[in-house]
Amino acid sequence: MKARVAIDVMLKGGILDPQGKTVEENLPSLGFEGVSGVRVGKHIELEIDAPSREDAVARIEEMSKRLLSNPVIEDFTYRLET
Amino acid sequence: MKARVAIDVMLKGGILDPQGKTVEENLPSLGFEGVSGVRVGKHIELEIDAPSREDAVARIEEMSKRLLSNPVIEDFTYRLET
Repeated sequence: MKARVAIDVMLKGGILDPQGKTVEENLPSLGFEGVSGVRVGKHIELEIDAPSREDAVARIEEMSKRLLSNPVIEDFTYRLET
Repeated sequence: MKARVAIDVMLKGGILDPQGKTVEENLPSLGFEGVSGVRVGKHIELEIDAPSREDAVARIEEMSKRLLSNPVIEDFTYRLET
């Protein structure tokens, strides 16, 4: 089966996010009020060709842990569209 | 109304994505086969406090265009969770 996959990698909750903080601090000077809690991470899209959905999920979790994120400071989530 | 917002910013289809290409080229050497079309972009999460959903949407589109993406080479999509 082939699936399109979207993976989001974000810094864990307790970890300071300087990029998000910079965006948040610059919004008011551009006229955007009422925005808080800005966090900036990575969004990865890919296509996977695997024997089964279970196999695809296992590969996505493994590659997210080993290549796409740093598990010490980052969390990841993913969605499969078959 | 308050809403949680997730914004994805990706390079437009025709634009070369060196980061995605690097990930894709390194996957086989780590034992991951069958992965193609890797694209890497930004994932932004934030909270917005706006008078109405329409107002929130307008602000999100405007800030995505003016601050979070480069409209010449990038596209953005967003989701609101109220």
